[in-house]
Amino acid sequence: MNPLQHIMSPESIAIVGASNNPTKMGTIQYLQLIHSGFTGEVFPVHPKEKVVFGKKAYANISDLPYAPDLAILVVPTKLIPSMIEDFGKLGTRHAVIISAGFKETGKIGHKLEGEVVEIAKRYGMRFLGPNCLGIINTQLPLNVTVMPVQTYNGKLGLASQSGTYVSQTLPYLYKRGIAFSKAISVGNAANIDIVDCLEYLGQDDATKAICLYIESIKRPDQFLNVAREISRHKPIVAQYVGGTEAGARSGSSHTGAMAGPDYIYDGLFAQAGVIRVRTVEELYAVGWTLATQPPLKGPRIAVLTNSGGPGTAIADTCSRQGLSTPEFSHELQEAVRPFIPGHASPRNPVDLTFHMDMKGMTEHIPEVLFGSDEIDGIIIHGIMDTGFAEIVYPMFKDLVKVSLEEFKKSMEIDLEKLVNMPEKKKKPLLISSFFGIEDNAIRSFHKHGIPTFDSPEKTAYAMSALYKYFLIQKRLHGKPGISPVPDKAKKLIAGIDAKNIDECKAKQILAACGIPVTNEVLVHTYEEACAGAKKIGYPVALKVCSPEILHKTERGLVKLNIQDEDALKRAYDSIQKKEKNTPMLVCEMLKGDRELIAGMSYFPGFPPCILLGIGGIFAEVLKDTTFRLAPLSQADALSMVDGLSSKALLGAYRGMKPVDKNAIASILVKLGDLAMNFPQIKEIDLNPIIIVNGKPKVADALFVMED
Amino acid sequence: MNPLQHIMSPESIAIVGASNNPTKMGTIQYLQLIHSGFTGEVFPVHPKEKVVFGKKAYANISDLPYAPDLAILVVPTKLIPSMIEDFGKLGTRHAVIISAGFKETGKIGHKLEGEVVEIAKRYGMRFLGPNCLGIINTQLPLNVTVMPVQTYNGKLGLASQSGTYVSQTLPYLYKRGIAFSKAISVGNAANIDIVDCLEYLGQDDATKAICLYIESIKRPDQFLNVAREISRHKPIVAQYVGGTEAGARSGSSHTGAMAGPDYIYDGLFAQAGVIRVRTVEELYAVGWTLATQPPLKGPRIAVLTNSGGPGTAIADTCSRQGLSTPEFSHELQEAVRPFIPGHASPRNPVDLTFHMDMKGMTEHIPEVLFGSDEIDGIIIHGIMDTGFAEIVYPMFKDLVKVSLEEFKKSMEIDLEKLVNMPEKKKKPLLISSFFGIEDNAIRSFHKHGIPTFDSPEKTAYAMSALYKYFLIQKRLHGKPGISPVPDKAKKLIAGIDAKNIDECKAKQILAACGIPVTNEVLVHTYEEACAGAKKIGYPVALKVCSPEILHKTERGLVKLNIQDEDALKRAYDSIQKKEKNTPMLVCEMLKGDRELIAGMSYFPGFPPCILLGIGGIFAEVLKDTTFRLAPLSQADALSMVDGLSSKALLGAYRGMKPVDKNAIASILVKLGDLAMNFPQIKEIDLNPIIIVNGKPKVADALFVMED
Repeated sequence: MNPLQHIMSPESIAIVGASNNPTKMGTIQYLQLIHSGFTGEVFPVHPKEKVVFGKKAYANISDLPYAPDLAILVVPTKLIPSMIEDFGKLGTRHAVIISAGFKETGKIGHKLEGEVVEIAKRYGMRFLGPNCLGIINTQLPLNVTVMPVQTYNGKLGLASQSGTYVSQTLPYLYKRGIAFSKAISVGNAANIDIVDCLEYLGQDDATKAICLYIESIKRPDQFLNVAREISRHKPIVAQYVGGTEAGARSGSSHTGAMAGPDYIYDGLFAQAGVIRVRTVEELYAVGWTLATQPPLKGPRIAVLTNSGGPGTAIADTCSRQGLSTPEFSHELQEAVRPFIPGHASPRNPVDLTFHMDMKGMTEHIPEVLFGSDEIDGIIIHGIMDTGFAEIVYPMFKDLVKVSLEEFKKSMEIDLEKLVNMPEKKKKPLLISSFFGIEDNAIRSFHKHGIPTFDSPEKTAYAMSALYKYFLIQKRLHGKPGISPVPDKAKKLIAGIDAKNIDECKAKQILAACGIPVTNEVLVHTYEEACAGAKKIGYPVALKVCSPEILHKTERGLVKLNIQDEDALKRAYDSIQKKEKNTPMLVCEMLKGDRELIAGMSYFPGFPPCILLGIGGIFAEVLKDTTFRLAPLSQADALSMVDGLSSKALLGAYRGMKPVDKNAIASILVKLGDLAMNFPQIKEIDLNPIIIVNGKPKVADALFVMED
Repeated sequence: MNPLQHIMSPESIAIVGASNNPTKMGTIQYLQLIHSGFTGEVFPVHPKEKVVFGKKAYANISDLPYAPDLAILVVPTKLIPSMIEDFGKLGTRHAVIISAGFKETGKIGHKLEGEVVEIAKRYGMRFLGPNCLGIINTQLPLNVTVMPVQTYNGKLGLASQSGTYVSQTLPYLYKRGIAFSKAISVGNAANIDIVDCLEYLGQDDATKAICLYIESIKRPDQFLNVAREISRHKPIVAQYVGGTEAGARSGSSHTGAMAGPDYIYDGLFAQAGVIRVRTVEELYAVGWTLATQPPLKGPRIAVLTNSGGPGTAIADTCSRQGLSTPEFSHELQEAVRPFIPGHASPRNPVDLTFHMDMKGMTEHIPEVLFGSDEIDGIIIHGIMDTGFAEIVYPMFKDLVKVSLEEFKKSMEIDLEKLVNMPEKKKKPLLISSFFGIEDNAIRSFHKHGIPTFDSPEKTAYAMSALYKYFLIQKRLHGKPGISPVPDKAKKLIAGIDAKNIDECKAKQILAACGIPVTNEVLVHTYEEACAGAKKIGYPVALKVCSPEILHKTERGLVKLNIQDEDALKRAYDSIQKKEKNTPMLVCEMLKGDRELIAGMSYFPGFPPCILLGIGGIFAEVLKDTTFRLAPLSQADALSMVDGLSSKALLGAYRGMKPVDKNAIASILVKLGDLAMNFPQIKEIDLNPIIIVNGKPKVADALFVMED
């Protein structure tokens, strides 16, 4: 059972650090807890206070009448280990450690954190934090953060390595109509980590979409397994800020996190079906859109506006984000026309122009659009009522002779029909408006879970996230798993006793795994070379073959395009002169038209990372590579091929034969299997893989083994 | 004199279309006008009303007591021509035509707009619109849009092809502390266009930065000239939404605009020193930052926060946007340390962690940072007072026993010192906060012109715009101008009498202009070819030379790498067989290591567009091209070379000699001069330009002349 099931839904809570001093963080969190509507028992623990804000306080943890389900600690850092011990003895098995000063501060804090982990382990305790800001469960309800929850029974689940995004943003979210189901501040994640949170939120029925603020993932393999399953039925959105040097350094001071480069996280998120966003605003806005709206089943968006600029900006942004705003058919234009002014356009965007009658915009035209099979989703810009009324009242008050409140009331629009259309018609609706919750229309949308955005472009961007999720759900779901490596390859690997192995052996292993390599012969004399070349057929390549020799090409130890025996002799002698008595490889000379590179490497904390990239002369300029984590499914591997930005190069480029994507994918899957079966292999480089007649063949290979 | 000087600062205004019906747009605009604080005369004109909201109304334009400085028309479309005529007769020389239904609606409207232009011309009248939403001058003050101005004496000038961004966003801007100096709705720009607006705002002392919302620029050459001068001393920010098919189509329905592709606008903006943004939120936010803050003189940003997540997100975004958040020196860390809690980090970001004492954050640490020469700009996240007080009051009210107002008052922070630091220390300060104007601290920042942002990432992005402007001001400012073309080239061009000219003639023209081309000889017989090849030296290339023959390479009419006379004979015969009696070119065989393409072409409405791109095998994959408008300065041309995304390819790439950037730039400048001097040249393609030993040489060239 996920430990968060207990932590998020306790029946009794002890909070240590609550006092009657309202400027103390412990007190603020205690006050939130008792004001949050939590109906279970709450026990303040304080060494001196007898009563804390009306509740009997306990001087010691051991004085508590029974072991509470959950312990919350907001005390000086150094007290944490003994208190965890005390709760352990008492029988409490779950805790939230708010206190900071651990791993994030350096060596001493790191050691202290280790002690806490050790003690908890001894008692079978699971805990959140340290250095976190608490939890919110708006269904129970329960809130032990530093700010009050303003909306209950939300749909968005959040797990965050920043406490601020769980708590200090609550008023910000309220103004935007966004409401949490559950929110969890993960802090240093010494025990419960973001993977546990993800799993919990995936299981939570009230949570319709999951948001993650990430500075580092400690268990990327588990993250992948869990996220990949959840994302099939529940959207996951993530912001990752550790991908730059500055972000990584700052994150390390913040939660002691060990971040990784962007490209690995990009690969991980792609593989896991996680939608990556760049800002916290996008995190919330996209999450909320996914949590509330029916699926977008295609890219065709209708834009309805009373202002041309925002309409144009929405159309432009849709186009940049992979959506379309198709011109309506004649029939659809005619269906819209009765509801728009004479000079207005029914083409899409439907632009009513400045217009005081809101009925067309809020009922008649939406009805037509929601009913049309030309359209997959709808964006409306410009609905406004009391916000506008308030602004213009000073000019009208002498005329209308009613109070501001009455004037606003008279301007209110009934949105009952519109707000129910998305659910009824199974199409998403998003609202763009320059007004906020001071406007009754905006409040109506919020009340009914229709997302609103304060800019046209953000509305279009959020719509595109619905489409991204549609594509994630539609994609192939290969069964990821580790396939065994053939016995022949096993034997070859078992026989390795050096850090590096020679090209010949490397290719033998690859070949034994079913990866296509150049046809070649290892030779020790010129006569053997001659025989080899004859067997393979000219032209051939001749290269030195030794695990010790690096930079073969640069040192003139590789001779290409050898046309006949004479040339072979010259090549052989030339190499022999530089490297006496070293074996050589006679290889077939591949006539390819493109080059790829593939490989396997480790990044600290991550499972083997599989790379695919454009090779040859393009490599340095394009820097076009893509990553996934092993083991790979064939679908994962195919998505790597399709994930290259210059994948056009692999198609029927300049009259060349299209590259066999399945053959490339199969190489990548096998690299993953090799890595998973033999952790002693630390690195594999296949460079180049030459494309001959559309098929890949490995022309050079390098293995690096564990020291 | 710029016509907007009169339009934006009239002493008397006639407004036609104002009535006593408050749902009519004309009435709403009239009410704005008389409530805006405008101190000049206002004359409502209405066929039936005697008095309009307290002012005497005139039945006819000819009844007006004198010719007002400005006429504003909000009447049915068809009445516009005769009314403009009436104002013309009366002697009024400036107008704002609000009415829509012109060019944006199709042919009939287009014709009507032409009539209005014609009538205005006859009377020497200048006008804004039609299909616009009016003007705002917060200094006069004057407002004839549909919403009231809430802040006067702002610093941001706006010209917009969307009326909404001038008017309906006013409450939105007020909440964000942003205030216009002047705002102009350009509409269809039938007479006064965005270039006039730009020029006017450039001259306006109250305007400290200029924002442009653009669907299309009608006079790009003039835009370039005007913007290039203004951007040297006043920042210009632009959003352009016509660069996608959807955006262009929508813009055309909106203001009848004829949009152009993104790449041309990117080139135009780069050349003009205009900062391009993608959203209207960025337009306002970046504009406001540039209008209010001292210049950022380097990329080094200090981040001060009471929350790790936002601090990390700011550092990460800075890094992605070309700024740095350097770790502070030991000295600077020590200077900060006394003001932070024990476990907090002084490294940068300075992270105070959750902290109720605001003094360190608002005074002590900022003083240290503003005083340090390690830092060019400062971002602070997390200052809050009454907004927070309001949120937590329900929990504290029984304890504090004061009213909400008193409680809020007691929490107010004095920001007097902080808000004055930017001007005093000549360093920019930007504020990130999840609170809005409900918070007294936010209002204090707004009052003092310190921009605030509702997300950490936006704050960092706005700071990066200051740095972009710093780089724009620092860049080379070559004197753009048209140089004459040498007489020899003139004569050659004058002699052209066909649509296409042959490669040989094309290269002669280029050579006459001083553009390096291959050494070559035009030959008509094999004997001439032999002599030519001897003179040039083997290896040579042989190609057919005729303006009529296209696809030479594909048809086997180009033979490369001819090593000797025998090979020359075979090549000559082979071409001769396919194309009898056609002249051929014997050219030197260039041994280059990279290829570029350059060219000149026209886009409707634009001056000649000069292109530079990566050529050869990379061209199709990289699609790396950059554009500028002729005439080019050497600095413009150099910025094209540096503007290529894969410019690394032009450096010491793979041991090659770096490409001579000045030589490339010089070719581009000369292409511009050719185009400006000879408008009959419609297209020039130099493809490929081969780089030999770092120097460019044109290997093939095509000219297309006017039909």
